[in-house]
Amino acid sequence: MDEKNMQEILAKAEVLIEALPYIQRFNRKIIVVKYGGSAMVDEELKRHVIQDVTLLKLVGFKPIIVHGGGKEISRWVGKVGMEPVFVNGLRKTDEATMEIAEMVLNKVNKSLVKLVEELGVNAIGISGKDGGLLKVEKKYSNGEDIGFVGEITEVNPKILYDLLEKDFLPIVCPVGMDDAYNSYNINADDAACAIAKAVSAEKLAFLTDIEGVYKDPSDKSTLISELTIDEARALIGDGFIGGGMLPKLNNCIDAIENGVSRVHILDGRIAHCLLLEIFTNRGIGTAILSEKEKRYYNE
Amino acid sequence: MDEKNMQEILAKAEVLIEALPYIQRFNRKIIVVKYGGSAMVDEELKRHVIQDVTLLKLVGFKPIIVHGGGKEISRWVGKVGMEPVFVNGLRKTDEATMEIAEMVLNKVNKSLVKLVEELGVNAIGISGKDGGLLKVEKKYSNGEDIGFVGEITEVNPKILYDLLEKDFLPIVCPVGMDDAYNSYNINADDAACAIAKAVSAEKLAFLTDIEGVYKDPSDKSTLISELTIDEARALIGDGFIGGGMLPKLNNCIDAIENGVSRVHILDGRIAHCLLLEIFTNRGIGTAILSEKEKRYYNE
Amino acid sequence: MDEKNMQEILAKAEVLIEALPYIQRFNRKIIVVKYGGSAMVDEELKRHVIQDVTLLKLVGFKPIIVHGGGKEISRWVGKVGMEPVFVNGLRKTDEATMEIAEMVLNKVNKSLVKLVEELGVNAIGISGKDGGLLKVEKKYSNGEDIGFVGEITEVNPKILYDLLEKDFLPIVCPVGMDDAYNSYNINADDAACAIAKAVSAEKLAFLTDIEGVYKDPSDKSTLISELTIDEARALIGDGFIGGGMLPKLNNCIDAIENGVSRVHILDGRIAHCLLLEIFTNRGIGTAILSEKEKRYYNE
Amino acid sequence: MDEKNMQEILAKAEVLIEALPYIQRFNRKIIVVKYGGSAMVDEELKRHVIQDVTLLKLVGFKPIIVHGGGKEISRWVGKVGMEPVFVNGLRKTDEATMEIAEMVLNKVNKSLVKLVEELGVNAIGISGKDGGLLKVEKKYSNGEDIGFVGEITEVNPKILYDLLEKDFLPIVCPVGMDDAYNSYNINADDAACAIAKAVSAEKLAFLTDIEGVYKDPSDKSTLISELTIDEARALIGDGFIGGGMLPKLNNCIDAIENGVSRVHILDGRIAHCLLLEIFTNRGIGTAILSEKEKRYYNE
Amino acid sequence: MDEKNMQEILAKAEVLIEALPYIQRFNRKIIVVKYGGSAMVDEELKRHVIQDVTLLKLVGFKPIIVHGGGKEISRWVGKVGMEPVFVNGLRKTDEATMEIAEMVLNKVNKSLVKLVEELGVNAIGISGKDGGLLKVEKKYSNGEDIGFVGEITEVNPKILYDLLEKDFLPIVCPVGMDDAYNSYNINADDAACAIAKAVSAEKLAFLTDIEGVYKDPSDKSTLISELTIDEARALIGDGFIGGGMLPKLNNCIDAIENGVSRVHILDGRIAHCLLLEIFTNRGIGTAILSEKEKRYYNE
Amino acid sequence: MDEKNMQEILAKAEVLIEALPYIQRFNRKIIVVKYGGSAMVDEELKRHVIQDVTLLKLVGFKPIIVHGGGKEISRWVGKVGMEPVFVNGLRKTDEATMEIAEMVLNKVNKSLVKLVEELGVNAIGISGKDGGLLKVEKKYSNGEDIGFVGEITEVNPKILYDLLEKDFLPIVCPVGMDDAYNSYNINADDAACAIAKAVSAEKLAFLTDIEGVYKDPSDKSTLISELTIDEARALIGDGFIGGGMLPKLNNCIDAIENGVSRVHILDGRIAHCLLLEIFTNRGIGTAILSEKEKRYYNE
Repeated sequence: MDEKNMQEILAKAEVLIEALPYIQRFNRKIIVVKYGGSAMVDEELKRHVIQDVTLLKLVGFKPIIVHGGGKEISRWVGKVGMEPVFVNGLRKTDEATMEIAEMVLNKVNKSLVKLVEELGVNAIGISGKDGGLLKVEKKYSNGEDIGFVGEITEVNPKILYDLLEKDFLPIVCPVGMDDAYNSYNINADDAACAIAKAVSAEKLAFLTDIEGVYKDPSDKSTLISELTIDEARALIGDGFIGGGMLPKLNNCIDAIENGVSRVHILDGRIAHCLLLEIFTNRGIGTAILSEKEKRYYNE
Repeated sequence: MDEKNMQEILAKAEVLIEALPYIQRFNRKIIVVKYGGSAMVDEELKRHVIQDVTLLKLVGFKPIIVHGGGKEISRWVGKVGMEPVFVNGLRKTDEATMEIAEMVLNKVNKSLVKLVEELGVNAIGISGKDGGLLKVEKKYSNGEDIGFVGEITEVNPKILYDLLEKDFLPIVCPVGMDDAYNSYNINADDAACAIAKAVSAEKLAFLTDIEGVYKDPSDKSTLISELTIDEARALIGDGFIGGGMLPKLNNCIDAIENGVSRVHILDGRIAHCLLLEIFTNRGIGTAILSEKEKRYYNE
Repeated sequence: MDEKNMQEILAKAEVLIEALPYIQRFNRKIIVVKYGGSAMVDEELKRHVIQDVTLLKLVGFKPIIVHGGGKEISRWVGKVGMEPVFVNGLRKTDEATMEIAEMVLNKVNKSLVKLVEELGVNAIGISGKDGGLLKVEKKYSNGEDIGFVGEITEVNPKILYDLLEKDFLPIVCPVGMDDAYNSYNINADDAACAIAKAVSAEKLAFLTDIEGVYKDPSDKSTLISELTIDEARALIGDGFIGGGMLPKLNNCIDAIENGVSRVHILDGRIAHCLLLEIFTNRGIGTAILSEKEKRYYNE
Repeated sequence: MDEKNMQEILAKAEVLIEALPYIQRFNRKIIVVKYGGSAMVDEELKRHVIQDVTLLKLVGFKPIIVHGGGKEISRWVGKVGMEPVFVNGLRKTDEATMEIAEMVLNKVNKSLVKLVEELGVNAIGISGKDGGLLKVEKKYSNGEDIGFVGEITEVNPKILYDLLEKDFLPIVCPVGMDDAYNSYNINADDAACAIAKAVSAEKLAFLTDIEGVYKDPSDKSTLISELTIDEARALIGDGFIGGGMLPKLNNCIDAIENGVSRVHILDGRIAHCLLLEIFTNRGIGTAILSEKEKRYYNE
Repeated sequence: MDEKNMQEILAKAEVLIEALPYIQRFNRKIIVVKYGGSAMVDEELKRHVIQDVTLLKLVGFKPIIVHGGGKEISRWVGKVGMEPVFVNGLRKTDEATMEIAEMVLNKVNKSLVKLVEELGVNAIGISGKDGGLLKVEKKYSNGEDIGFVGEITEVNPKILYDLLEKDFLPIVCPVGMDDAYNSYNINADDAACAIAKAVSAEKLAFLTDIEGVYKDPSDKSTLISELTIDEARALIGDGFIGGGMLPKLNNCIDAIENGVSRVHILDGRIAHCLLLEIFTNRGIGTAILSEKEKRYYNE
Repeated sequence: MDEKNMQEILAKAEVLIEALPYIQRFNRKIIVVKYGGSAMVDEELKRHVIQDVTLLKLVGFKPIIVHGGGKEISRWVGKVGMEPVFVNGLRKTDEATMEIAEMVLNKVNKSLVKLVEELGVNAIGISGKDGGLLKVEKKYSNGEDIGFVGEITEVNPKILYDLLEKDFLPIVCPVGMDDAYNSYNINADDAACAIAKAVSAEKLAFLTDIEGVYKDPSDKSTLISELTIDEARALIGDGFIGGGMLPKLNNCIDAIENGVSRVHILDGRIAHCLLLEIFTNRGIGTAILSEKEKRYYNE
């Protein structure tokens, strides 16, 4: 073996060895991955995300995928000749729309099952209706009834624990039922956050279409790599956070306050962002954590 | 309590007591129910079927539901402006049709999950893709390629055993994958039969739109209540069996020869036909069984 | 099938379906049945009681039978030429009487084992001596020593949990031992109540020779179908309760206060009273429950 | 501590150490003890037998006691004014006699439970009816119907395995049921032998009223300490074995041929005969074993 | 069997029976044996100790041996031409000495494993490094650094529970690691005491070279057979305890205050002292216990 | 993040993803690593080997380390003034030498335990004496008695299965006992091979001081990367294999013929050779496998 080959091969070994302490730290821990945005549209990125989650599973983590499907729902609403209606950013979801939404979300769900199975890992696709996982109530938009849009009131994690124990990788689509057993569409970020809290996940990772949280959104050089919840609250209070990031950051704070150790806002447009975040010492995106957690890791 | 009330109440007790030996005999046994036909369209009948299966679950059986959804698929194919095409009774399933078929089958699947959950029993809706349950290869119609219509080549029942162990009622929709992980539509009767064989089900019950097997299909008084597989083969040989009953009866024979103890062809248009067949001494429809089984129960 | 048959057969199904929510509610719950009175003498009623308890076992409950045998003891005491002596309703139990009592109770015990085994369910007959189940001390009747009549001081439920786990139906006869390991006869109502408390039974059912508790015992129309323990105490305070009902009602109150959810005083002379009480919406006899429990079920 | 005390105390230690290899060899092995004869009448011997069996239990063996009660049955048959009748050494057992026999055997059974419990070990007294342990058919005496005398046709050892697993010492009285669930009296030697075979006991020990097997019954100096089953058959063939020893020896041969490693015929009139046989290098009575077993231990 | 043999054999039985209540009381309890002193040098005594511990194991106890090896270490230090140095009774342990100490302790450890295996019991020899059992920090002798002499700061008993569950007899040599994973020599008495506390041992027994604790060390007739920790503290306060006994007695008090029921200081020069202490009613040496424990056993 | 950083970080991800199928294939499989040669002397290499094995453990494999210690033994033999003697390459091992050998091997053993524990994984160091793991008989060198050099006659893998089940990484030093419980030194290659066979290891890896097997040992360019056992036999037959490689290759063939899937001869002087062999598609050294295995992986 010549010198150059040797160098190259040793570099490979170093990467694996670098992953060792991370594999050890998160062994048998639950990681909830909110999968959405560009990473769900680009076929190449899709393959990378699924490879990452499957690798996490194989090295001893217990990942759970929660996914959305907004764009695909709109496409099918159009396909049957209906017009998507949004109220304050929330889809107005009448019965016909809900029927399509559920169909589309299940289709996306099973397409992810397929990708994981292809890699030789047992996946199971469920919705929040299976095993009574997600209980919801109607969500109003500034008092306006916008149909079957649900707010989670209760998570029954038994089905997730059962599936993890039996070594499946659960893939969850955000549909739930109210007390009268009607189906509702749920925001996927909210579903991922509620599930992460219910199973006391070690990590909750959001795959998004931005690089992370900025101190100043207009200045890309102000990306924050670590943010305690106190700092996050301050940023919100100072009015620096807006758009889709506000509810996401509130979800992060909520998760941290309810037993999740760390939340990651990752740029899903970077290949293998998840793997790199977890297995290397070069973090990607923004990590949200408690003050206590921050002190612990910096000691 | 007056005499009449007393009589009525005692009659109730007798019905429960009549069920006792059947509950005992089938305790912890797996029963695969192929659910289709009218019983899937009429809301009242639908409720009855689900009540029956749920009761079976609660008294100690391990039911698995396998369902179809042909009519609903056709409706949605139309809805998006396409034309359903059938070749020798098999739906020609191009990629666009398959996408719709899978969406619709998953929708039906989750609607059954909802009905079971409503009765307080944990249900989980899966397809043959989850956990690699159903492996298929392309099925040709007299040599003609009719697209994504699959023939089952392998059943991996691990996921079903896992779910039954964790006390779920599994509801399966007949979609599987080939070696290249493409999705295929599968005939629900075939799927139910293959699953019943793979888990060595005690019973396989087909909910159909006919009363059962007739000696002479033109004479309704010739309904056969019990049929050994030798007798079934003779009937087929004599040309008495035709139409949709022929493949169904072949499925029955196949199941019995591969470890299923008894197959029932039930009239799904009769309310609670499943319950009555299993829990009372008044059989409904036609039971297919082996010669050995017949001798055993008549002793 | 003609119309009339059809009607009849559907009525059967309705009874089974009516039982569904009850089967679900009490799944894997322990039910202690105090079996005594007429239901132990009449062979037909005996068969019905055993059928009922066996059915409860088969559909997922965990029943425990506690039985007496007073009349049969008296018969055998006479048979060997001795005279039964009672002091304030308690049998004066010298050593010779105790020897006979234990023999007779074990005989009755094994005759019940036989009836359950006949129905294909594994039964095991034990006394309070086995596994140290019932510890007693001598009970005095107004200060008078009446021999080997015991008052329960401690229940060691390990043997019951072990037998239930191994799927046996335990049948217990009310004999216990004091600290010096002498055998004592115990009132069967007391034994059933103490056992129900020790295993936190969901239900305790007394099979008696009366219809239930009356507001006015002289007026059969005043049968009370539901009684909270506060109401029961008021009735006792008002002097409406007398005879054998007084200690029984005290037992009921004691049981409810110590973790049993509901106690039933049933008329054992009605065939299948136990089954009807539990599986139908027509309660039989009187149910005693806590105020909290009452509110819960009426909501 | 003076020299004499020291010597005495060291002698004690030596006895315990002598037991070490035996404790090790039989660890977690099942030992069936047929308990009967004088050892059941003399209160002092009774206490010794129970101490021995309890010690076996505590040091890791799994003993099962099977006992008879012939003399006590006769006493009670007389007590109620009936006359015991024997046909060829078998008790003629009409229904009334059977009722008394079962009562008495259960009484004896629970008196043994008491003695074991007193020593702090969990005992459970069962009959061959519990858990369907002993199935029998009617036994005829030279063609004559002698009533409810049973011959064992099937042993269902589940109940014994369950109780041993739950750390109970099972005490079995020899009553079984036929296919019609009638009760029968069984010879206790036969019951012990059948049970030892069914559970593949390591040892079966008969406590008897003789010293063991003699080459010449008239010459006490011809006591045989070890007998292979071939030698036993030869002795029988030569006509040296008679009386009650003949069926016992046949039982021994039957047991050895069906998986029991060693059968002991012990003199129950010697205090702690069981303990001495098992824990010391001074065997007591006669050991019956296979040729192979003999070779194995002499190597 | 003649009379004299009979007497002798019965005496044997009595010794075994005498052990019965002790076997019962300590069934499945953990006993930590600190093994050292003469009993480790004399081959005959060594054999006796191992026989005793093995017997304890076989009759259902869970013994753990903790041993030292001081004399053997000194012998090897000399063998390689070094000089043992002691500071205030503690061995000055530089790196070279520590290397030898660890080698010697492991040699002794495996020689004990051999003796136990020879008796047919599964032994496993570990040090405090295996499974992170013993965490230490440097121990100073009146402020002086004496090298790798460790003081236990933490016990992680997982490895011991695992090995006991898998039915091994763990044999532990007193070497531990500090936070930087350097090896340290630990006083064996301290290790035994720390382990006994960590596993809440029922008993902790020190095999020593003295008879026990004396009221007046100069008067051998003042041996104390039972000492409560209050009494022990008083003795220490009065200045009666000196030399090696002082730290040992402090260890005893520490153990009793932290969940160990009884500590025994035994004379390891008496053959089978351990067995005699535990299995006979003639205690040997001194037992230290709490006031509460004393009252309990004297009642 | 600039482009160059991005490239570098993506390369890292690719290495991890490349490992995915290997992690999956060997999940929960046992890998026996024979650790010796230069990799045991160079501290840097030592650290790499332990990192590799620990990583294997963390990602779901079940590694077992078997190590030697020849050079260190010689060093200590000299230290105490003795002269190492070798007969045909085998150390002449008298009692004194054996004592030192065992001490040194245990020292090396615990030093490896330390390195694994340091990485946060539970290790346990055992010898072949613990739990009776390795039974040996004396090995003669061409008929000459060379003392306590053992040949393995039996492996009792219970202790390894127990430790793996409890999630320990077992580290084994090659000392065993004969039937008389004397200790023997064992060749570490033989011990690794015997253990791999006994536990049906998926892989057996030898860390050596050569690059692998050469077709022509004088020509480094003839390194063989894959060798079936038939080819290996042919090479041996042709006289191409000599020196230390001959017994090693015979061990490989023996292992493959007895259930091990693949044996690797790796160059322990290359950092992370183990990791690279297992996790990358660039094999290192020579793999020996069966003809069947070769066909399987090449399909």
